[in-house]
Amino acid sequence: MRIDILTVLPEMLESPLGCSILKRAQDKGLAEIVVHNLRDYSTNKHRKVDDYPFGGEAGMVMQIEPIDRAISHLKSQRNYDEVIFTSPDGDVFDQPMANSLSMLDNIIILAGHYKGIDYRIREHLITKEISIGDYVLTGGELPAAIIADAIVRLIPGAIGDEQSALSDSFQDNLLAPPVYTRPADYNGWKVPEILLSGHQAKIDEWKHEQALERTRLLRPDLLK
Amino acid sequence: MRIDILTVLPEMLESPLGCSILKRAQDKGLAEIVVHNLRDYSTNKHRKVDDYPFGGEAGMVMQIEPIDRAISHLKSQRNYDEVIFTSPDGDVFDQPMANSLSMLDNIIILAGHYKGIDYRIREHLITKEISIGDYVLTGGELPAAIIADAIVRLIPGAIGDEQSALSDSFQDNLLAPPVYTRPADYNGWKVPEILLSGHQAKIDEWKHEQALERTRLLRPDLLK
Repeated sequence: MRIDILTVLPEMLESPLGCSILKRAQDKGLAEIVVHNLRDYSTNKHRKVDDYPFGGEAGMVMQIEPIDRAISHLKSQRNYDEVIFTSPDGDVFDQPMANSLSMLDNIIILAGHYKGIDYRIREHLITKEISIGDYVLTGGELPAAIIADAIVRLIPGAIGDEQSALSDSFQDNLLAPPVYTRPADYNGWKVPEILLSGHQAKIDEWKHEQALERTRLLRPDLLK
Repeated sequence: MRIDILTVLPEMLESPLGCSILKRAQDKGLAEIVVHNLRDYSTNKHRKVDDYPFGGEAGMVMQIEPIDRAISHLKSQRNYDEVIFTSPDGDVFDQPMANSLSMLDNIIILAGHYKGIDYRIREHLITKEISIGDYVLTGGELPAAIIADAIVRLIPGAIGDEQSALSDSFQDNLLAPPVYTRPADYNGWKVPEILLSGHQAKIDEWKHEQALERTRLLRPDLLK
């Protein structure tokens, strides 16, 4: 899978995309993530990519031309399944959406910045708007990194132990049960005895009950 | 405000915390963000911070001891308002929560990694669990960066134009209206005429109507 990210702040994405699972997936050839500086597509001599909004309002707006040029350039090289824009009013990102996106071949993610992007970009060039949550951020760079992280780790082979991804929260619509590791007693705080018992069938039953109970208590909406 | 982030992957946070608004807020002395490597608090000679889970399951679990030592060390130096853990089953992060957190003095954010953290940490050391959304990520580092970004930009003086933060989506429970900038006509795609009219009162009315209409259409839940 190939992910192209368009941004005015490529440096912000360096360490999130260059570490951990995302680095490993790229090293193994499972994913290719390419970050493009939108200023490289500006025709302005100062490499400007933003301007004042029409109708008077605070903040700057990203212009359509550099973004259109960047997307057209990429589309001339390969087919893209989606051109995604990260926006707080997009479709809410969740695990089923991550699962679907992880099966695509090529996607573009446009990271917004400043006050917003010229609305014509959203009307004519974007195929999917995604919100990672109901909060406002400095820009779309961290949301782009979040989306890349959530989908790349689902590509078979990206994480060492595939069983581990399958038992994550949400994959079976249940929150994960509590986990514990050594020491069994830390300053008097003890691990539940059942986990030390060695009876695997009872342990599995306990884990399933805990997962159900935590989901009922904390996220009953997942059980509907 | 001071934010201490505890992680096994400090390098992942370098560029998100060192760019843009977060960098500027730190340079101006409005926020201090300190990243701590949990391995520095391990008593193991290999600086190990994880171990196999009790009860047999795939993946590794972060141990209680290094985390307890790191939190105790920080608490011996100053009072903390919250010790936050980022987890997909925590309280869902939203703009009102970002507003409240931005008014605190000192917070710790623990970024989980691997299969999870020993549940006793969550029971005894954590005061607030936050989920940035219903999806699974490689670790809590990006969520920690998201939370830091969302709250630091709300500190007065952090973004250049305070009006700009006030007119963001969610701050008035409405999605932002569409924005446009030059050129007024791009390949036949035109900016709405009203925005070019110069009638500020009519423009403001149009913007409010658009914000309402977009919210009704896309996020009717915000109007309840």
